[in-house]
Amino acid sequence: MTDNVAQFQAQAAVLDAADTLASKRDAFSLPDNTVYLDGNSLGPLTQEAKARAKDVVERQWGQDLITSWNSHDWIHLPTIVGEKIAPLIGAAPEQVIACDSISVNLYKLLNAALRLQADRDVVLTTADNFPTDRYMVEGLNASIGERAITLRSVEESAILDSIDERVAVVMLTQVNFKTGNRLDMQAITEKAHQFGCLVIWDLAHSAGVLDVQLDACNVDFAVGCGYKYLNGGPGAPAFVYVAQRHQANYRQPLQGWMGHAAPFSFAPDYQAPTTIKQNLVGTPPVLSMSVLDASLAVFADVQMLDIEHKAIGLTQFFVDGLDAYDLKTCFHGVSAVGHGQSGAQVGLCHPDAYAICQALISEGVIVDFRAPDILRLGFSPLFLRYVDVATAIEKLADVMQLQRYQAAEFQVKQAVT
Amino acid sequence: MTDNVAQFQAQAAVLDAADTLASKRDAFSLPDNTVYLDGNSLGPLTQEAKARAKDVVERQWGQDLITSWNSHDWIHLPTIVGEKIAPLIGAAPEQVIACDSISVNLYKLLNAALRLQADRDVVLTTADNFPTDRYMVEGLNASIGERAITLRSVEESAILDSIDERVAVVMLTQVNFKTGNRLDMQAITEKAHQFGCLVIWDLAHSAGVLDVQLDACNVDFAVGCGYKYLNGGPGAPAFVYVAQRHQANYRQPLQGWMGHAAPFSFAPDYQAPTTIKQNLVGTPPVLSMSVLDASLAVFADVQMLDIEHKAIGLTQFFVDGLDAYDLKTCFHGVSAVGHGQSGAQVGLCHPDAYAICQALISEGVIVDFRAPDILRLGFSPLFLRYVDVATAIEKLADVMQLQRYQAAEFQVKQAVT
Repeated sequence: MTDNVAQFQAQAAVLDAADTLASKRDAFSLPDNTVYLDGNSLGPLTQEAKARAKDVVERQWGQDLITSWNSHDWIHLPTIVGEKIAPLIGAAPEQVIACDSISVNLYKLLNAALRLQADRDVVLTTADNFPTDRYMVEGLNASIGERAITLRSVEESAILDSIDERVAVVMLTQVNFKTGNRLDMQAITEKAHQFGCLVIWDLAHSAGVLDVQLDACNVDFAVGCGYKYLNGGPGAPAFVYVAQRHQANYRQPLQGWMGHAAPFSFAPDYQAPTTIKQNLVGTPPVLSMSVLDASLAVFADVQMLDIEHKAIGLTQFFVDGLDAYDLKTCFHGVSAVGHGQSGAQVGLCHPDAYAICQALISEGVIVDFRAPDILRLGFSPLFLRYVDVATAIEKLADVMQLQRYQAAEFQVKQAVT
Repeated sequence: MTDNVAQFQAQAAVLDAADTLASKRDAFSLPDNTVYLDGNSLGPLTQEAKARAKDVVERQWGQDLITSWNSHDWIHLPTIVGEKIAPLIGAAPEQVIACDSISVNLYKLLNAALRLQADRDVVLTTADNFPTDRYMVEGLNASIGERAITLRSVEESAILDSIDERVAVVMLTQVNFKTGNRLDMQAITEKAHQFGCLVIWDLAHSAGVLDVQLDACNVDFAVGCGYKYLNGGPGAPAFVYVAQRHQANYRQPLQGWMGHAAPFSFAPDYQAPTTIKQNLVGTPPVLSMSVLDASLAVFADVQMLDIEHKAIGLTQFFVDGLDAYDLKTCFHGVSAVGHGQSGAQVGLCHPDAYAICQALISEGVIVDFRAPDILRLGFSPLFLRYVDVATAIEKLADVMQLQRYQAAEFQVKQAVT
């Protein structure tokens, strides 16, 4: 063991001892002998979520049946969950609600924003934004209307210079899903507003891990994910944010009965509520929504700034480990990491990224692969310890230095489509 | 006890003894001392669903985490569930998929159907269709396009006469959500096609309880509900049917990454699959979808025609009970019931319907209320016995004849919005 390695490993224990969030790990139900670096794709189960899942299925549904809409307040779950998410993303009350998926919510917001921008038809986004965000803009042109929308795609570095008076909506993901690169929400939103554009932020890789400040940045609209850093379970409902100042004039086309001003009047004609509730469409997925609600309990007594500090701390510590083990040269690219620069993830580029991913998983270090060549590692701060990062680096060093990933068993891709 | 009443009560035991579906009741986890006549609003928990819920939360999510997308085949759940639903609604394989809510799915189908009917702009529906169906048509005009759609609303009896060459889409619910009245799918679809219209059927109150024959009726599109007669749990995912002949030209605007021809290529531009998978949008709600999947096991070895026969049998037996107890005159309207005429529900009109509903619930007979004046009773045939119907009638007689519903405790409406 080199001095650098010994020093790095010793540092893990020091950092864990000083970690004010360390006790949060006990709130999670984690598998043994596993370092889980995929909380950015699927957050793990909490004890509270496990208990709630059993209760909502066996008692609320099984025993109390239809009466649970009132007696267990199922009907208000989307609002209850939204109000729990709001403080995590810097939003005052009555601006966030849980519903549908990010994709469906983007469609609502794009339509609503474009209606407010009748004389502009460009949506500005990044060339490597998460595909669904781009597809949803293209989908507007598959709607039955005749107003053609142009998707203007640029590199992240060119966003500020690409904002002009033709842009109706700037739609961006705060943290890049592959590289973890973080965009400057404040600067971009401010410049967009100077040019009369509206802004939609996708918080898929930032809600629950960064100190997002939607209100302070004067953001117009946002969407985010329930199953990544919010730990809400596989396919948990997403959420949508509409700034208070837009709610009176907001109109989205997916007019469902749950988004009527008085759903249980069963009125024949739609009446839009001028509140965040207009984003509700059909009956909410109560089982998934209840589990998400319970998962949020872990955030009740912590500050997002502390979570962000630990997230960047873990991420930076991982990069320090790459240096200590002299691993950086194994990769032809390592994403930028640091306060203001990144989310809680690192992307490592390698032509054999898929095989390396499989080799690490076989060693109990759960990471993921993003085509064509990125090994993606996420550092979710509520359950990870610095010693877990040290373990991950040690295993990565084994896999890379002994070229274990070249074993035939790691080369064959599993079909996930 | 009158002779009629004694005869009616005795008949219940005779009918139960002859019931070939009687053993299915054991598959359900039902509360004690309860007659549950609200399976048409929220189907009850099955033993299989209870076990699956625990497994998907505690083992699949809790222990196996992200690897479950492959190891527990989460990625194929929408297809797996769709293929289990297909035979229940008379659909050959590769035409049904589980996703989103009925409301969202109607929006997809309406857009896709109207794109195929570029020169027509009328959607024909009924004045008392379920509100979300109507709202979704209105919502098309809140989309960003400029093609105005006209909603033509008629009484159920006027549907056939209202089909003409201006109608792009006939959109109907097979069984009326309030009255239980059943429309003639075959005759309406046939006439619509004669006039060049496309047809969307909403199976919310028929899938899983009637012998629906989508392929045989040459239906174009359909949607349906997972949480009513399919017993999939509160807010379970809905499903969508697109006839094979339309799939090559089908295009819906909610273009999400899960509905891309190759989702995990993360390609920057959308490519539509020419299969039912185009209806997928965002990440599916795995917990809710898994529970729906398990709930469908109860249908594996039964014929829909047998289920329909018992459903109509129970419903007819309830109406016989109204006669035996001389209760029909208590109500100013009783919906029509019978093979081909109704689904598995009865609507009773009364100005105090809400209070009667509450009084029955307090007696352990769970029914529901639909504004302004309908007491709604559903007869889900897989767990209900004829003796349950007899009990319900006996309690209803008590409530009506002694006017128990006039007690103050039953008059105050609970807020559910």
